[in-house]
Amino acid sequence: MTNVSWDRVWLGADLATMDEAGGIGHVPDAALAMRDGRIAWVGTREQLQATSWSAAVVTDARGLWITPGLIECHTHLVYAGDRSNEFAARLRGATYEDISRAGGGIVSTMRATRAASEDELLAQSLPRAQALASEGVTTLEVKSGYGLDLTSELKMLRVAQRLGEQLGIDVVKTFLGAHALPPEFANRHDDYVRHVCDDMLPAVTAERLADAADVFCERIAFTREQTERVFERASSLGLKLRLHADQLSDGSGGEIAARFGAQSADHLEYASDTSLQLMAHSGVVAGLLPGAFYYLRETRLPPIEKMRALGVQMAVSTDCNPGTSPIASLLLAMNMACVLFRMTAAEVLRGVTINAARALGLGEDRGMLRAGMRADLAIWKLRHPEQLCAEVGTHRPIEVVKTKR
Amino acid sequence: MTNVSWDRVWLGADLATMDEAGGIGHVPDAALAMRDGRIAWVGTREQLQATSWSAAVVTDARGLWITPGLIECHTHLVYAGDRSNEFAARLRGATYEDISRAGGGIVSTMRATRAASEDELLAQSLPRAQALASEGVTTLEVKSGYGLDLTSELKMLRVAQRLGEQLGIDVVKTFLGAHALPPEFANRHDDYVRHVCDDMLPAVTAERLADAADVFCERIAFTREQTERVFERASSLGLKLRLHADQLSDGSGGEIAARFGAQSADHLEYASDTSLQLMAHSGVVAGLLPGAFYYLRETRLPPIEKMRALGVQMAVSTDCNPGTSPIASLLLAMNMACVLFRMTAAEVLRGVTINAARALGLGEDRGMLRAGMRADLAIWKLRHPEQLCAEVGTHRPIEVVKTKR
Repeated sequence: MTNVSWDRVWLGADLATMDEAGGIGHVPDAALAMRDGRIAWVGTREQLQATSWSAAVVTDARGLWITPGLIECHTHLVYAGDRSNEFAARLRGATYEDISRAGGGIVSTMRATRAASEDELLAQSLPRAQALASEGVTTLEVKSGYGLDLTSELKMLRVAQRLGEQLGIDVVKTFLGAHALPPEFANRHDDYVRHVCDDMLPAVTAERLADAADVFCERIAFTREQTERVFERASSLGLKLRLHADQLSDGSGGEIAARFGAQSADHLEYASDTSLQLMAHSGVVAGLLPGAFYYLRETRLPPIEKMRALGVQMAVSTDCNPGTSPIASLLLAMNMACVLFRMTAAEVLRGVTINAARALGLGEDRGMLRAGMRADLAIWKLRHPEQLCAEVGTHRPIEVVKTKR
Repeated sequence: MTNVSWDRVWLGADLATMDEAGGIGHVPDAALAMRDGRIAWVGTREQLQATSWSAAVVTDARGLWITPGLIECHTHLVYAGDRSNEFAARLRGATYEDISRAGGGIVSTMRATRAASEDELLAQSLPRAQALASEGVTTLEVKSGYGLDLTSELKMLRVAQRLGEQLGIDVVKTFLGAHALPPEFANRHDDYVRHVCDDMLPAVTAERLADAADVFCERIAFTREQTERVFERASSLGLKLRLHADQLSDGSGGEIAARFGAQSADHLEYASDTSLQLMAHSGVVAGLLPGAFYYLRETRLPPIEKMRALGVQMAVSTDCNPGTSPIASLLLAMNMACVLFRMTAAEVLRGVTINAARALGLGEDRGMLRAGMRADLAIWKLRHPEQLCAEVGTHRPIEVVKTKR
């Protein structure tokens, strides 16, 4: 029998491996070993006795739960300024569309973001990323989309990168030039889309500042055809794709995402049956964003039951952004996914681990406790991980293990 | 001109004094002085120049906001165990009343709370109180009501007291023996109420373990007549009164609270116009609890507009409890009061300062920045305190000043 040697072993913990179809993959009285930043061994303590091993560090983890490090797969958390004014207007009855058409919304954040220096933008964004990291988030997606000119979009993406370096977490960067129409292109949507495709996308790709491209496909943003143009160009440049789809109306977003092989289509309150079928078929993850639903006081729920029936994979995220979801707490988004969307705790826990990993194209690399996967871990003092969904305000991991890239 | 001497002065801050009818009492470029744990002087920096003063500590507070220390006026945060199971049942469609009638709910927490030692109970409750204190809460109300026998009720109240000592905040203790019917009194509501009145209330008062008494007046708990019996006895023993009123049905709770001169009546989703008029007339504060509304997915809003029109004072609180509002975040309750109840940020900020102080009978002592008031302060890095309501997850005071009793 070979003697295996590990960097660290946890003994006696309850694991939520996520390595179970639809469930959390609970392994009680478990053992988990890591080596060189990867999970080396997972099983019960009893099974481990059949193995001859040694480890530099052995941790008694009885009474603790270990989950994969949480994965936040949809944020707009790099921005300057705040939109409290708009919040007040919305309380008085203004809709998202009213505010957007009145020049508020995204464009007001664009002004503040353009005006901020890169260091200022980093300083303002850091507390949000920090808040997420303190909850056990080890992989964080961040979108551009408040610059809306090349210089400012690049600045945002550099800030996203620096956030990851500063916090020691992985940041997945998404270029969202097609987020809103900047004022200098007023009434010239097609011209702006051309600018995104011909100037911005090649520059962003050349500087390796984005892993994927995203488009806000909606009647107040970009049409189906414009979305397709951006997707074609982004694909040809080797970027992965995501989509803001069917949030305020059915724009066949899910269908477009499926046709282009996007990694995820997010929001989906108005997604059609056809869209969902195509998404299930193509493995497009549904990114569910209850924070925006809550803030906008929407009443139309995303079609969770249908997604379940069709086997669409569901991820859950904060959508952290200054206007429609100023929530820098993935744990709160998890609670809202249960309370508002009636998702089960198991669905939600999968939605911030393995399914969020899949939404970022990282499902083979992380989001599960399985040998060979990255050893990104969150360690919690809990009776059951369901408490992470049921109770708000008290839970923080007692330790986060993050493998640096 | 006399030279005044202070312990500490803050210069250049923006103050939210709450010392303005209905508003936050914004004083820009302000000065605030404290001495012997009380606020000694409040005004603009310019006004201060007319005064001859000295201070042991002078703090440059430009760019910061100072608010009164936050006041959390309605919690049940001392308890053992968790109710994730019930959360799951509720997601599947069970109502609060279903769960309560099936022996879940309060009675299941009662079992865990009775079984816990005082130290265990303290250890389990501390993270919740700590979470609130970390948000700037300097005065915290805690109710008993999961013991439902004398020994366990006293244990809960002692734990509440120890929480305050341990965290250096003021804890206001409320005896809520009439929270639910313990199983040993099954179908004998009147006998239990007699026990509360004749045995529990005198013992709790003799040990000085409560400042006030509270009753859950509701069709699934105690009737109007039973409530009145408890109120009469508690009053005669010198306790202040609060009431869980009109949450699930109109039980004339607001009216009873007004007639007995209670400090607050809380929940109030179903309060009648008569109740509200009487509350306004008698100065009973309305305790608004959006967390329970959110968790129970209620659709009936408390009559905020009518309260406004009648001049009922509104306080906002978490209702932190294991079943219907497992939220240990006053900042989140503030956000929910805006988003779900459509309260304005100014109303909500008053609701966790001066109006919460009034709900605890402490409106002359704290909850405002005014000379003579207690120098309990929360100091924040914000553009505007409205951000505390609009944005979730990132705001924590950079300093909390708390005067020990």
